[in-house]
Amino acid sequence: MFQEILSTADIELIHQASMKLLANVGVEFPHEEALAVFKKHGFKAEGTRVYLSEDQVMKALETVPAQFTIHARNPERNVTVGDGTPVYAPGYGAPFLVDVEVGKRAPTMEDYHTLARLAHALPNQDMSGILLVEPGGVPSGTAYLQMLHAHMVHSDKPFIGSAEGEVGARHTFEMANILFGGELDRPVTICLVNSLSPLGYSTEMLGALLEYARARQPVVIAALMMGGSTGPITLAGVLATQNAELLAGITLSQLISPGTPVVYGSTSTNIDMKSGALAIGSPELSQMVIAHAQLARHYGMPSRGGGSLTDASYPDAQAGFESMMGLLTTVNSGISFVLHAAGILSSYLAFSYEKFVLDDEICGMVRRLHEGIVVDPETVAYDVIAKVGPGGNYLMETQTIKRCRTEFWQPNLCDRAGLEGWMQGGRQTAVDRARARWQKLVAAHEDPPMDETTARQLNDFVEERIK
Amino acid sequence: MFQEILSTADIELIHQASMKLLANVGVEFPHEEALAVFKKHGFKAEGTRVYLSEDQVMKALETVPAQFTIHARNPERNVTVGDGTPVYAPGYGAPFLVDVEVGKRAPTMEDYHTLARLAHALPNQDMSGILLVEPGGVPSGTAYLQMLHAHMVHSDKPFIGSAEGEVGARHTFEMANILFGGELDRPVTICLVNSLSPLGYSTEMLGALLEYARARQPVVIAALMMGGSTGPITLAGVLATQNAELLAGITLSQLISPGTPVVYGSTSTNIDMKSGALAIGSPELSQMVIAHAQLARHYGMPSRGGGSLTDASYPDAQAGFESMMGLLTTVNSGISFVLHAAGILSSYLAFSYEKFVLDDEICGMVRRLHEGIVVDPETVAYDVIAKVGPGGNYLMETQTIKRCRTEFWQPNLCDRAGLEGWMQGGRQTAVDRARARWQKLVAAHEDPPMDETTARQLNDFVEERIK
Repeated sequence: MFQEILSTADIELIHQASMKLLANVGVEFPHEEALAVFKKHGFKAEGTRVYLSEDQVMKALETVPAQFTIHARNPERNVTVGDGTPVYAPGYGAPFLVDVEVGKRAPTMEDYHTLARLAHALPNQDMSGILLVEPGGVPSGTAYLQMLHAHMVHSDKPFIGSAEGEVGARHTFEMANILFGGELDRPVTICLVNSLSPLGYSTEMLGALLEYARARQPVVIAALMMGGSTGPITLAGVLATQNAELLAGITLSQLISPGTPVVYGSTSTNIDMKSGALAIGSPELSQMVIAHAQLARHYGMPSRGGGSLTDASYPDAQAGFESMMGLLTTVNSGISFVLHAAGILSSYLAFSYEKFVLDDEICGMVRRLHEGIVVDPETVAYDVIAKVGPGGNYLMETQTIKRCRTEFWQPNLCDRAGLEGWMQGGRQTAVDRARARWQKLVAAHEDPPMDETTARQLNDFVEERIK
Repeated sequence: MFQEILSTADIELIHQASMKLLANVGVEFPHEEALAVFKKHGFKAEGTRVYLSEDQVMKALETVPAQFTIHARNPERNVTVGDGTPVYAPGYGAPFLVDVEVGKRAPTMEDYHTLARLAHALPNQDMSGILLVEPGGVPSGTAYLQMLHAHMVHSDKPFIGSAEGEVGARHTFEMANILFGGELDRPVTICLVNSLSPLGYSTEMLGALLEYARARQPVVIAALMMGGSTGPITLAGVLATQNAELLAGITLSQLISPGTPVVYGSTSTNIDMKSGALAIGSPELSQMVIAHAQLARHYGMPSRGGGSLTDASYPDAQAGFESMMGLLTTVNSGISFVLHAAGILSSYLAFSYEKFVLDDEICGMVRRLHEGIVVDPETVAYDVIAKVGPGGNYLMETQTIKRCRTEFWQPNLCDRAGLEGWMQGGRQTAVDRARARWQKLVAAHEDPPMDETTARQLNDFVEERIK
């Protein structure tokens, strides 16, 4: 049903290599509490290096939920990760914006609020995100509080939590407690923990992982291995190495708190061997996504990978075709959680307002494609076809009129005016239409209703900490 | 292995509806010889309407080859249709060009020669095509002779034959006789015969079909049904109707000459219900392509469908993502023959030099994606990974150096310069790079060698007929 690229034998070879790496080479966990957890459960550890046996890993994986729901403050916006349909979330972590007028520029907190409003308004983004860009002009140590606040206020879609160590995690939960009005008893956010390839984790990320696991809030554990520099030049080698990294981190999550929702994640890809730069619009990225989704299914876990990804620095044809290759392959492969579903340019270095709405259109198209074709006596429509007969026209048929508003996907910004219409309309490009659309959406945005006490408490919480 | 959208039961429902249509409603064949062939074989015919029973159709399909080779004058350029890999051919039949400077303009014969040279130069186009655009400034009745000549002279890739009735077909064979130096004893071209939806064929197309079948030269028989106007508004209904049309035409080809290579083709899609315009960048187009490829496999025939298709009138992000959705789905679905693999804009109304090279890049990316991932002990590379260990780098490893030039796909025009590089390079867009690339390719083009006698005979043949 889902697209595949690995045979059963391929998966077994990769699995065996990962198990040998975990047992013989080990993984770096430079965090005292993490090391203590491993040791308490009888894992071999030397310094910060932990060694894991196949039995230990496979036992830990048994408690990973195959799917879970992230609750939003508006229950209609809840999302389920791992049910066979993709959850789309915006781009994450871009240090820059690309402005179609001036090119590269630094994002401000004002940009951040605009982007958070847009994340709410765009119809195909299921989550509103966090860290869409890294806003300047605010203290960097507490910027995540202002970002969390922006998502909680401007949107009732589920948000992504902070991964800024133990403190970022705890602040996320405290703010969520205010937003949901009580102690958290179910998943209300998700956090992105990245490994430090090859075969390690950073202290900060482990801090976040421990807190999320203790709170039983979901965590994506993902590798971004660069094949040819931080990973082997062969994709099979990248898969084996990142699989070892990921399974080690996932094992830790289950040791801390069995049943913690975790997602098996990857954004690993090749580097361009001419420049050494990360290549996220490459066919290799898509190959990795397919293989990664297969491995996740093999282990019975939800997956994260892919997105609307490009190496282009402007929302042009390259950005369009690379992003569609990435996103369509992501969904064809059955990936559960799609971070970077919209907005990314320049190999994760930049976010773009125009790309955000263009990619949201891609998300909608791909979703519609996967709804399939209904084949039943009514849709096969023998009687209609026989009645119209050879040379006839269906425009005025009752069936056509009845279904004309609902049968087909309707674009939000794709041009279908035709050649003459395009000439008469002043030869607008997709960027022109995208800009008009985001400006209109932002102008029309209204924050979803929030009771005054909650609003004040959230505001006070953030104000007190950013002074 | 290939992407699917229909269940076995869906296929059976569609098949049964088609069979009922063929038996009870019939198909229009307004061509005396075609009617005579049907009658001679015992088919029921009334006026120009032919009725086909399931037995008659299924018997005719038995002689359709599952695959066939089209021979080029350079045998290294031969292509096989139906072997499980796609054959890419350029866009076809565009009445206009889109010039990035001025927009819509009429193509000249000079444009035609430039495009034919480009079709030869582009690395991912397997055939050089015909009727890339409809050139103005030459007598329209004999323009196909000049086009055939352009493809034969500028390229040694296989060309597509003329479908301009009996005469176009015969001239194609006579010119091929000159080119190949003797009577045709194997497929050396392929012709595009379109049905006239719903449930009919034009006299001219039937003329071409008869000649190609008699000469045992391959024919694509394809429907372009517009769901909601020339076809039912439901995709299942479109599939049932076009399947009836196509099987009727294919039956005729096998009655004339059993074993004639034919391709089961479709470019059917929905219309935009707001404008009534054809929508070829739609998700419905992609859904139709997947279903069509499945039906072709069900009947054991090679298929044609999809391509790098867009409704955009400029090679922008929309053109990029719509074209990638179409082409990637086409290849994922296992379509055998991909007409319109490159160059099309504005719902088939226009061809673009820049889009031609951008789409060729898409073709290459998709082909590379389908090469898969090699998983064996050498590529899994346990020893290399164990040696590098946690925190290490692979850049200087022997394996990396050995494979650094060959392991990954190399773009021809995708920008991987990064954000700073893009800013410093003057913020070029994909259109800028595409223009530079096609101009360079055309400037560097040299016609493949051709002996003087053949060149003179081809030239004389065309000159005599266009006076």
